[in-house]
Amino acid sequence: MKSLSHSPYGTGTVYLVGAGPGDPDLLTVKAHRLLLQADVVVYDRLVSDRVLDLIPTGAVRIPVGKESGRHCVPQAQINDLLVDQALRHARVVRLKGGDPFVFGRGSEEALHLRRHGIPFEVVPGITAAIACSAYAGVPLTHRGASRAVQFVTGHFRDDQPVELDWAALANPDTTLVIYMGLAHLPLICRELVRAGLAATTPALAVQDGTTPQQRQLTTTVAELPARVRGAGLVPPVLVVIGRTVALAEELAWFNPLPQGTVDALFDRVAHA
Amino acid sequence: MKSLSHSPYGTGTVYLVGAGPGDPDLLTVKAHRLLLQADVVVYDRLVSDRVLDLIPTGAVRIPVGKESGRHCVPQAQINDLLVDQALRHARVVRLKGGDPFVFGRGSEEALHLRRHGIPFEVVPGITAAIACSAYAGVPLTHRGASRAVQFVTGHFRDDQPVELDWAALANPDTTLVIYMGLAHLPLICRELVRAGLAATTPALAVQDGTTPQQRQLTTTVAELPARVRGAGLVPPVLVVIGRTVALAEELAWFNPLPQGTVDALFDRVAHA
Repeated sequence: MKSLSHSPYGTGTVYLVGAGPGDPDLLTVKAHRLLLQADVVVYDRLVSDRVLDLIPTGAVRIPVGKESGRHCVPQAQINDLLVDQALRHARVVRLKGGDPFVFGRGSEEALHLRRHGIPFEVVPGITAAIACSAYAGVPLTHRGASRAVQFVTGHFRDDQPVELDWAALANPDTTLVIYMGLAHLPLICRELVRAGLAATTPALAVQDGTTPQQRQLTTTVAELPARVRGAGLVPPVLVVIGRTVALAEELAWFNPLPQGTVDALFDRVAHA
Repeated sequence: MKSLSHSPYGTGTVYLVGAGPGDPDLLTVKAHRLLLQADVVVYDRLVSDRVLDLIPTGAVRIPVGKESGRHCVPQAQINDLLVDQALRHARVVRLKGGDPFVFGRGSEEALHLRRHGIPFEVVPGITAAIACSAYAGVPLTHRGASRAVQFVTGHFRDDQPVELDWAALANPDTTLVIYMGLAHLPLICRELVRAGLAATTPALAVQDGTTPQQRQLTTTVAELPARVRGAGLVPPVLVVIGRTVALAEELAWFNPLPQGTVDALFDRVAHA
């Protein structure tokens, strides 16, 4: 098997793989196959345990994400690690939560690999914005409510101020999705309203989206910080702000039971 | 099998499934499984033939997309069709190109199903913005180049003018992705530059992204309409505008050969 994926340059291939939002059923067919065939898997902390469970016992597992009480491995070190692993193994899977090219720094890793002559492939994943909103019953676009989508990150380095283009974000015709918005949520919501977004604009927060632990709440952008604090939500939390959030109640379909979905619930009812 | 997915209400379940951008390897594990188990599949024209090939021979296939010389089935008729099929079959797969809740009108179908008491699930798919850019070597975010992403559609009904928030879209710190932008591309690029976006901003057009027929070109936003016309690109075309497009050449990895990817190319070289 190893010889097949070795390049003519005598190194392995690094697969920059999106692990999706958490539910292993939302891995792509390609990501699933690559995981099962991996010689080594380098993974972030945002990759769910149920996805990591798919890694074969014989494969080397290298966590590089931040864990409680420890700092994460610096990006430059991850870059070098990937080159090093590709010189030792045929199939190196670099597994990232969501999609590798959406707030995933996958492009920095890809550039480093290219500059070191290591072949790579990018395997897109379902990004949190799309999956967590869908599992909360919220479409990102909907006729008459929203005809555009914006993704921003609310994560800023400690030494940097929160700088976003508030006027552009405060657009009532656009659905705004905020990744990692928990830390700066009061500031973000305040600035959006100050920039002209109606304080009554519907807002959603989803913790652990698509997993059996999914928690969600819907309210208004003005009330969101207090409601999120009151509910005690902890990362990872995705925030969605816009008119389509008003559909969440009517479109609710995902029932985060341990065994899964609405189907399982129906089976239970049917056999009761 | 049928009884398992029947709800206690005596109807089937409708699965609103994202088929992804074209490459069947980018279906989710769940989408793949549902397709193999489908009793009936209602599908759009943007779903690739290689995905449709997965539909079992025993399943009913119902195309509802526009085909050459014919109009597509009106949305209201599709909505009713889904209800009708759920009353006849246990597992109804509604297959849509990309993701059902991103410019997919899946939420209109979900609302209709809910109002008629038909159980449904949403199965997110890899949307074109994420997959086609990744397969063209273009990240949607990249440190120092772009820290936000916007998705808009360039498709407008014949009786409506092209109305977009040009000032918000002409943001050099944001990657702009335009779905179905081919028809109005000259107007879109002109208005972006008029709103302040540098005429030299890098721009990408990808036709048939992620498939063996993928074609792509990179240029500047000012030159894009002429280059796209000159290359004779035809729908479906995804357009990406922003600084990260400048990375396309260095990050190129996908080689759209009939048998697939860079790996296949390397195998060929290795065995030559």
